[in-house]
Amino acid sequence: VDCVGQVRVAVVGLGYWGPNLVRVIHELPEAEVVAICDLRGERLEHVGRLYPGAERTRDLTSLLEDPKIDAIVVATPVTTHFEIAAAALEAGKHVLVEKPMAACSEEALALVALADAKGLVLMPGHTFVYSPSVNLVRDLIRSGDLGEVYFVSSSRVNLGIHQPDVSVIWDLGPHEFSILRYWLGENPESASAVTRSCVIPGVPDVAFVTLEYASGTVANIELAWLSPSKLRRTTVAGSRKMVVYDDTSNEPVRVFDAGVDLPEPRGFEQYRLSYRTGDIVSPAVSTVEPLMLELADFCRSIVSGGEPRSSASLGIDVIRTIELVERVTVAAGGRSA
Amino acid sequence: VDCVGQVRVAVVGLGYWGPNLVRVIHELPEAEVVAICDLRGERLEHVGRLYPGAERTRDLTSLLEDPKIDAIVVATPVTTHFEIAAAALEAGKHVLVEKPMAACSEEALALVALADAKGLVLMPGHTFVYSPSVNLVRDLIRSGDLGEVYFVSSSRVNLGIHQPDVSVIWDLGPHEFSILRYWLGENPESASAVTRSCVIPGVPDVAFVTLEYASGTVANIELAWLSPSKLRRTTVAGSRKMVVYDDTSNEPVRVFDAGVDLPEPRGFEQYRLSYRTGDIVSPAVSTVEPLMLELADFCRSIVSGGEPRSSASLGIDVIRTIELVERVTVAAGGRSA
Amino acid sequence: VDCVGQVRVAVVGLGYWGPNLVRVIHELPEAEVVAICDLRGERLEHVGRLYPGAERTRDLTSLLEDPKIDAIVVATPVTTHFEIAAAALEAGKHVLVEKPMAACSEEALALVALADAKGLVLMPGHTFVYSPSVNLVRDLIRSGDLGEVYFVSSSRVNLGIHQPDVSVIWDLGPHEFSILRYWLGENPESASAVTRSCVIPGVPDVAFVTLEYASGTVANIELAWLSPSKLRRTTVAGSRKMVVYDDTSNEPVRVFDAGVDLPEPRGFEQYRLSYRTGDIVSPAVSTVEPLMLELADFCRSIVSGGEPRSSASLGIDVIRTIELVERVTVAAGGRSA
Amino acid sequence: VDCVGQVRVAVVGLGYWGPNLVRVIHELPEAEVVAICDLRGERLEHVGRLYPGAERTRDLTSLLEDPKIDAIVVATPVTTHFEIAAAALEAGKHVLVEKPMAACSEEALALVALADAKGLVLMPGHTFVYSPSVNLVRDLIRSGDLGEVYFVSSSRVNLGIHQPDVSVIWDLGPHEFSILRYWLGENPESASAVTRSCVIPGVPDVAFVTLEYASGTVANIELAWLSPSKLRRTTVAGSRKMVVYDDTSNEPVRVFDAGVDLPEPRGFEQYRLSYRTGDIVSPAVSTVEPLMLELADFCRSIVSGGEPRSSASLGIDVIRTIELVERVTVAAGGRSA
Repeated sequence: VDCVGQVRVAVVGLGYWGPNLVRVIHELPEAEVVAICDLRGERLEHVGRLYPGAERTRDLTSLLEDPKIDAIVVATPVTTHFEIAAAALEAGKHVLVEKPMAACSEEALALVALADAKGLVLMPGHTFVYSPSVNLVRDLIRSGDLGEVYFVSSSRVNLGIHQPDVSVIWDLGPHEFSILRYWLGENPESASAVTRSCVIPGVPDVAFVTLEYASGTVANIELAWLSPSKLRRTTVAGSRKMVVYDDTSNEPVRVFDAGVDLPEPRGFEQYRLSYRTGDIVSPAVSTVEPLMLELADFCRSIVSGGEPRSSASLGIDVIRTIELVERVTVAAGGRSA
Repeated sequence: VDCVGQVRVAVVGLGYWGPNLVRVIHELPEAEVVAICDLRGERLEHVGRLYPGAERTRDLTSLLEDPKIDAIVVATPVTTHFEIAAAALEAGKHVLVEKPMAACSEEALALVALADAKGLVLMPGHTFVYSPSVNLVRDLIRSGDLGEVYFVSSSRVNLGIHQPDVSVIWDLGPHEFSILRYWLGENPESASAVTRSCVIPGVPDVAFVTLEYASGTVANIELAWLSPSKLRRTTVAGSRKMVVYDDTSNEPVRVFDAGVDLPEPRGFEQYRLSYRTGDIVSPAVSTVEPLMLELADFCRSIVSGGEPRSSASLGIDVIRTIELVERVTVAAGGRSA
Repeated sequence: VDCVGQVRVAVVGLGYWGPNLVRVIHELPEAEVVAICDLRGERLEHVGRLYPGAERTRDLTSLLEDPKIDAIVVATPVTTHFEIAAAALEAGKHVLVEKPMAACSEEALALVALADAKGLVLMPGHTFVYSPSVNLVRDLIRSGDLGEVYFVSSSRVNLGIHQPDVSVIWDLGPHEFSILRYWLGENPESASAVTRSCVIPGVPDVAFVTLEYASGTVANIELAWLSPSKLRRTTVAGSRKMVVYDDTSNEPVRVFDAGVDLPEPRGFEQYRLSYRTGDIVSPAVSTVEPLMLELADFCRSIVSGGEPRSSASLGIDVIRTIELVERVTVAAGGRSA
Repeated sequence: VDCVGQVRVAVVGLGYWGPNLVRVIHELPEAEVVAICDLRGERLEHVGRLYPGAERTRDLTSLLEDPKIDAIVVATPVTTHFEIAAAALEAGKHVLVEKPMAACSEEALALVALADAKGLVLMPGHTFVYSPSVNLVRDLIRSGDLGEVYFVSSSRVNLGIHQPDVSVIWDLGPHEFSILRYWLGENPESASAVTRSCVIPGVPDVAFVTLEYASGTVANIELAWLSPSKLRRTTVAGSRKMVVYDDTSNEPVRVFDAGVDLPEPRGFEQYRLSYRTGDIVSPAVSTVEPLMLELADFCRSIVSGGEPRSSASLGIDVIRTIELVERVTVAAGGRSA
């Protein structure tokens, strides 16, 4: 942290997501982009042009040796997360690593152990737990307003972006699994999943996942790189109310005062249910950019201590859920009833 | 068929759906409602008031003996379908029976054998195969416009109506399974399903179903009686185009000229995919009421012969799909990964 | 009124709207369709087929002489309203006449005088004042929830139906003007309007109307027969809240807790305004058919006395508003700035 | 223009819009932000922090004397446009001035004369003529696809932002009037308008404007600072097709193949019209930021010569339309029919 209290950050990896991180750190009063790093010269050139104050380098090692850098933000391919994050922690740097935090839970646990040993912040970039909409839904669940959570149904689909080294479950799954963990406060006990590799053989680009929780809640999650239009829509059906969260809408959270009341058995024959259809409310939601809040929380953890909301333990839970899903996955074509 | 060529129909069962059948038969030039039948006097009174020309009776037997009745339309609870339809066929009446056609495939097969032996029309009421929108999507699939069908994702959810003797799979499933059979021209080879009985113990009101087909197509189907708002939305993702069918929208069919092109392996490392995002077209769709077309097809089969589009074999396929799904269903709470 | 308390009604005019009136009267417990009347045999045939209990006639005179008829519902072209309604009143029949009630305010006043002299119900068919959504908005305005009504902006547009003898102002205007009268409780003091006759020379099919009220409220109304899709959307902007009423939506009333607060002049230079953007609420709205409520109100007035909500004085106010608008209308092409 | 071909720009005025201009110029390869200027130190501080390479100054005069500045971008209040733009032109700088270009047409003409005399680029910032959606609609109109343009109906409403020195017509009007000028290729011949000053006395915040063109086209435009939600929706109804342009939608242009065909007079009595309701198409629209294209066009004009698309003559036409509208405006409260 420099003399004016700014955390001095280097961003490693300038692919799809990295430039967003650079932009937000640049805008954040609490931080300063002191260096950007990528193996590709053209990416350094392209991104660096807008931030003349940031050093450009292809050499990660020299970066880690630089004493004027407090923290490293890692936005490289998943398979490299462990190696880069571990090296940064070894070098005494705080680390924010994009989701998923590592390529397996063993790697993630090792990173946590290393960070603990060094007394450094290690934070996965689960941006959605900073989303005002996600937090509003969490409040509705936690306050009991929704009643018992019967089920969650979620679609996260778009067109692209295929990655040859990672399935749609590793790519889009962390968003869903981090949100569910954050909302429900529990991890799934069991799962089932069907995937298909439509475009590239062996690279699943469509997945239908079902999760079951000890509380009784069931969740159905559809992940796809092949859908015509971006869709991020999650329904949480509770015994009292239901809520629809749609990240791409102008009204991202809609609360339906609708439900089934008073199941009273009437003799052996028939239940008398009463269906309520009440008002629909779209609460006002803050439009603050979640990535801004995430990076501010990272800086706060470095400066003041305390676990960030997107904690390393959340990062581990997410990877364990992915691993659970992968263990039970049936690749379409190879199954019989 | 009477002297002016009208099929003389009696409608049995005046619950939720029966009155719609009475109304449409009354409006149809090819048919005439000569009798309505229900065990409940107040339903006979309530519905009969609007159709003073129709005889009202609680006595099914006398109805089946009435020589001026050509056809029986059965809209009673599922468990009674077999008995009533079989009696009607035995009495020489053509039969339209609501979906699902019977409570198990053995019953359905027995009805078909009986109808064949008697030379009578036996038709399940799979209304959706008469929907102009469903047929438009079928044409897009069959013509090859969509390319290979990668996956289908469908939600059919609403608030209510719980029935104590039937699960959401038997209640809402026939709609989905008949549409999929009609579109894809094949039956699923395998399935998985998770259900939960949220309101009435032992009566599943939420089901997440995955179907796999020999062609490679996978389908994810969400059925629920507990959702805040009626939703009937099906996405069919093909290799060339994608289509979204939403029964409740003013633009029920939307075709997205979007997809992934030209997967060309480039060395070992990376595929070069090209994503298209083109025009979106909402084709003009006829607003004819599908139930009107269904009942006209029933009359046409009776008068001119030939199988109705909603054929008995479609009815059997739908029941077999339900039975496949039930065999693999996991009720949430009783499974470990 | 017959021995079971049903009002015995004859419907005159079986064009576009008449069959809806016949259907609803047939369904209404309080009334009975005893006769239908039209000059065109094929319309009598077409509509009468569904209501075998109703007498069919082309002879209005004999209908008016029939003592078993209590009330006449008039759904003929506007230019004939006066003559038919007057004859019916003279013959001692209660009268419901479609909107606009007559072709000019003099005719409307003469009808009212005649009904008063005879002690009969005379009711214009302003269906929208029975709409649950329209009444919900009225309650919001009348209760002060919206604050001062700054402005109303309304679009009522569709494709068709051109009528050679009437402009879009006479055809679609009565809907808007009756709603505004019902909401605001006042008649416009002044107006301006521009029309264009796009398709048939001399028959305005597009009109932009502005109304000003003594209270300060201004209203902008767009009427067109030429729009691509049916649109009925009205915004009422108040000083406290705003409401959007969209008749074609699943959420027909939406209340926006948004507004401008506390205009405090700050020196000569600048006002300090505070903009609120709060929750959006879609209140639950009854789905009862307004036409059912309208006809029940007509029957109630006949049986129990008392003015119907769609009163003759409302009918006169609507015609006077049309006449005000017509006086100030500029036909595009014939004006200079 | 510097040695690497970049236009060296200073941005004057860092209020609401200025920072956007600075950001885009910074990102644009063809330009460079060499200085930012505002009278308020805190704005210089706030904006300048993100662009450490840009000089910060409160002194416009020194800026205009600086030979390393090629162009001035003016984003100050409207009343200051003339003075600042004139001084910049006098100092030999190219000028981009925000819309409206000046506070009256005399000022705008004087600026044009000065730019011509000096051989400098003078460009108003009518961003919408660079919008891919606006250009797509223009192509539909110009190609004859829509047929004759019957009418245009437009709403541009939002909550805020009241400005004490300017009416909603001067604030939101330039967007509408520049688009209409660009689409229709003609200026209005006559107009009518009603305004109301709901919040601040004497500052109209709602305006209903009607424009008439020599071609017969009529336009209705609703401008308001008081609406619950941002709405930018324009319908262009042609004799062949209709198009809806909605700037805030994911499908900003929708083309309706709907219309009225073949008005054939049939005797004296009735026209036989045929209504078409065909497909609806949402063409793919480029998502390039219009402001980026606008500033690139400004640079291109400076380097290569040639009039920018947002030309000074467009700027003058827009101001003349505002002046026409103001001449005919009736302020609600002061008019009788």
